[in-house]
Amino acid sequence: MTKTKTAPRKSAPDTPDAAVVPSRSLLSVTSLRVADVAEIMQLATELEDEDPAARAQRLYKRRVALLFYESSTRTRTSFELAAKGLGADTTLVSALSSSIEKGESLKDTGITLRALGAECIILRHPQSGAPYLLERETKLPILNAGDGMHEHPSQALLDLRTMLAHLHKPKHAVTETSLSGYTVTICGDIFHSRVARSNMLLLPKLGAQVILSGPTALLPEVAATVGPGITIERDFDKALAQSQVVMMLRIQAERLAGRHIDLEEYKVRYQLNGGRLAPHKELLVMHPGPIIRGLELTSEVADGPQSAIAEQVRNGVAVRMALVARALGAEKAKKTGAVKATKGKRA
Amino acid sequence: MTKTKTAPRKSAPDTPDAAVVPSRSLLSVTSLRVADVAEIMQLATELEDEDPAARAQRLYKRRVALLFYESSTRTRTSFELAAKGLGADTTLVSALSSSIEKGESLKDTGITLRALGAECIILRHPQSGAPYLLERETKLPILNAGDGMHEHPSQALLDLRTMLAHLHKPKHAVTETSLSGYTVTICGDIFHSRVARSNMLLLPKLGAQVILSGPTALLPEVAATVGPGITIERDFDKALAQSQVVMMLRIQAERLAGRHIDLEEYKVRYQLNGGRLAPHKELLVMHPGPIIRGLELTSEVADGPQSAIAEQVRNGVAVRMALVARALGAEKAKKTGAVKATKGKRA
Amino acid sequence: MTKTKTAPRKSAPDTPDAAVVPSRSLLSVTSLRVADVAEIMQLATELEDEDPAARAQRLYKRRVALLFYESSTRTRTSFELAAKGLGADTTLVSALSSSIEKGESLKDTGITLRALGAECIILRHPQSGAPYLLERETKLPILNAGDGMHEHPSQALLDLRTMLAHLHKPKHAVTETSLSGYTVTICGDIFHSRVARSNMLLLPKLGAQVILSGPTALLPEVAATVGPGITIERDFDKALAQSQVVMMLRIQAERLAGRHIDLEEYKVRYQLNGGRLAPHKELLVMHPGPIIRGLELTSEVADGPQSAIAEQVRNGVAVRMALVARALGAEKAKKTGAVKATKGKRA
Repeated sequence: MTKTKTAPRKSAPDTPDAAVVPSRSLLSVTSLRVADVAEIMQLATELEDEDPAARAQRLYKRRVALLFYESSTRTRTSFELAAKGLGADTTLVSALSSSIEKGESLKDTGITLRALGAECIILRHPQSGAPYLLERETKLPILNAGDGMHEHPSQALLDLRTMLAHLHKPKHAVTETSLSGYTVTICGDIFHSRVARSNMLLLPKLGAQVILSGPTALLPEVAATVGPGITIERDFDKALAQSQVVMMLRIQAERLAGRHIDLEEYKVRYQLNGGRLAPHKELLVMHPGPIIRGLELTSEVADGPQSAIAEQVRNGVAVRMALVARALGAEKAKKTGAVKATKGKRA
Repeated sequence: MTKTKTAPRKSAPDTPDAAVVPSRSLLSVTSLRVADVAEIMQLATELEDEDPAARAQRLYKRRVALLFYESSTRTRTSFELAAKGLGADTTLVSALSSSIEKGESLKDTGITLRALGAECIILRHPQSGAPYLLERETKLPILNAGDGMHEHPSQALLDLRTMLAHLHKPKHAVTETSLSGYTVTICGDIFHSRVARSNMLLLPKLGAQVILSGPTALLPEVAATVGPGITIERDFDKALAQSQVVMMLRIQAERLAGRHIDLEEYKVRYQLNGGRLAPHKELLVMHPGPIIRGLELTSEVADGPQSAIAEQVRNGVAVRMALVARALGAEKAKKTGAVKATKGKRA
Repeated sequence: MTKTKTAPRKSAPDTPDAAVVPSRSLLSVTSLRVADVAEIMQLATELEDEDPAARAQRLYKRRVALLFYESSTRTRTSFELAAKGLGADTTLVSALSSSIEKGESLKDTGITLRALGAECIILRHPQSGAPYLLERETKLPILNAGDGMHEHPSQALLDLRTMLAHLHKPKHAVTETSLSGYTVTICGDIFHSRVARSNMLLLPKLGAQVILSGPTALLPEVAATVGPGITIERDFDKALAQSQVVMMLRIQAERLAGRHIDLEEYKVRYQLNGGRLAPHKELLVMHPGPIIRGLELTSEVADGPQSAIAEQVRNGVAVRMALVARALGAEKAKKTGAVKATKGKRA
């Protein structure tokens, strides 16, 4: 992975040199330099503000494939609308409705999608590392939409955009100290969460401190060693007292079973409810969704004024437009007269 | 619901005032004034006649979500093609292929879709009243594509358009007496049918008489009390003799079982076949589909000259274009030079 | 079928004359004249080379339905991207996600799709002959995307395009002798393969010899009688020695069971591996996919320099664009100033 950090930005399909290839992909936050993050944040804002008709010229009729081996409304829909918003034709290949179930390998499905004209594949896969395999075999830019228990990098980027907006940092001035002095607590099933992992790896790059909170069964001690700037605080209230942001994770009841965790006890210690949030009037509440109301957080909190949950989803489309545009080399707006004319149509 | 009848037409997402919000939605035919129906009929005709390229400017790159908790080829496809025909980007979220199955609430799915940029949600849901909940929680215009045993209002509107065309009324001159002197018989499983219900509520608003026909098990006496202008006639042939239109409903064999209805006896009494239709040369035959040939009606009738079944489907796209355009405030055609240029492209 | 061979090219939906209707359909390769094949090949090249924005004007906002009763990633996606590339709005109706499962007949689904505005239906169906029924009932141009064990004509056409490119024939000069002197071996489960069948019927029209190879259980003697120019050679190595092209078919292990075929023995006799291919340096290796690595062919061969597998997929999009354009009468490019302006936008 370290090789890719300094890889030049080049469109790769025809370049067999593996060291050059991954630059337009997003497989993991670990391969992102702070400058890359800054560029993505800036591009997201630019695309969000752009006239929809002009924006739709950026990737007009280019092809983007969505390859989903797991169901996911929000991530799939977010990427799909992002790609369509840039004018691309999308096609969805999912395990439920496709020949994936005939047992074709990921490699061969990827080669097929490339041959069908896809210039970028957005992959959700239950196995950690699957996006690396897909990139190696197809030489296409791959956007990791979640791989096993490994990473969900676009989620971490949209979470970052949400935090930057709320911490009153200008959205596009991202540096190694953008989050210096800020602490983010991540609470819940850290062990199974690729969202947690991507955030743990990204936030400290920008200067943030990360506190992990949760019972041992869901948060083993080793989690603090994933990267720098991470500590564990089992007492959730103590963690909150030190934080400007709290990120709640979904608790799947079926994962608690067999782990000797009592659901009621869990709620007492870790549920974010009105009482627990009351002392922390400035705390920003985040959740990657889907939420389970009454479990990891209450409706009072989810729908309350400190919640940024819907805003995270909104930022997801902007960030993913940036990622897709970047993957296909469309960082620059089309500035021809024709586009201006199109823009005029909507005025 | 009465509140909404006089609500001004205003785009609602940012307006928390509940009384104002529902005006661009279509949740039920009960909230439609005759003037609203007239406007929808006129807009349907206008959109149907518009040049496809110009029409595609109306909602160019705006986002419409299709949220289907039940399968439905014809309704989903009809709304989808209607929205695409107006230039919108659509995204389909269905129970079969999405994170709905993870147990996320309708409220949270709606909030997510709004945050993803959807400006209108088309909802099919097995629970009566679900569209009201979705509208209340999202403040978005919601188009009810069928909710439980409650309503299927866009179906009633397309049925109306079909009737108006055949009864030689100009399509756009809809008043409280448009259907005065006309009688529509609805026959079959009235009890389970949201289509029947929406028609029963809509047609009398325009002056029509509605006769319901069917066995007690599928048509309880109480059905006649749903609204004004409705009577029950158990003798199907007598009902036909008084009608200009007959609307046959699908009979699902599994619903008859356990209700002491013999299928053969049902056919003798209620099947619309060539013999039964023969005396009624002017009768218009309608069916919301999907039809079961040989059960509620025969192929001879379904494919015969009096059948308007395919025409109903065709009218569905026009009416739904009107509903989507109205939901997003695009009742007026884009009249710029740019659009004319686009129009020229196709000449 | 013979009637259709000389049928004039005319758009059919409004024409009840059955003899005229099928001309824009592709139901079977048997109804294709060599001149039709030549035209499709030429159009495929023209569309592949056309500017994407100009190409998207050809069927801008026209409607194409994909009706898939069986899952198929590559065929569905290929047709879908082809239709979208021409600017059409597509809608997918599949057995998995639609009211097909409510038991609606193919006829009624087809009539519904036509009424929804579909001007062409692309059909995949498990029953042989289903596309004929659909064409007869809808009078729409139907593109057969695979029907039972009968045909998969677009696959044969894309295979042909792949062969022509590799045998150094100019892509568009297709005549009755284009493949004269060339031999194509098809190996594997011929009995169940509609791909084999369509190729067996098409290739000899252009002068090719076809050799079928495989064990009796998968390749009955009668197969050689399907058409002219076909012989059987059970010794795969002997067949290869006479061929310029080999087309490997997928072996589904579950089909071998109960047919007294030992999988290991099958591989010894028929697997295309490095050793077997070594003596034939000029042989072009094809496979319709999805491939099972290590069964009918090895990875060494599938990924080797003689493999045209990905190229077949690529040719699929071009050929299917030609088929869809032909079905809707869009063989001529839009040559207006407006299109040129659009073209300029992308420069």
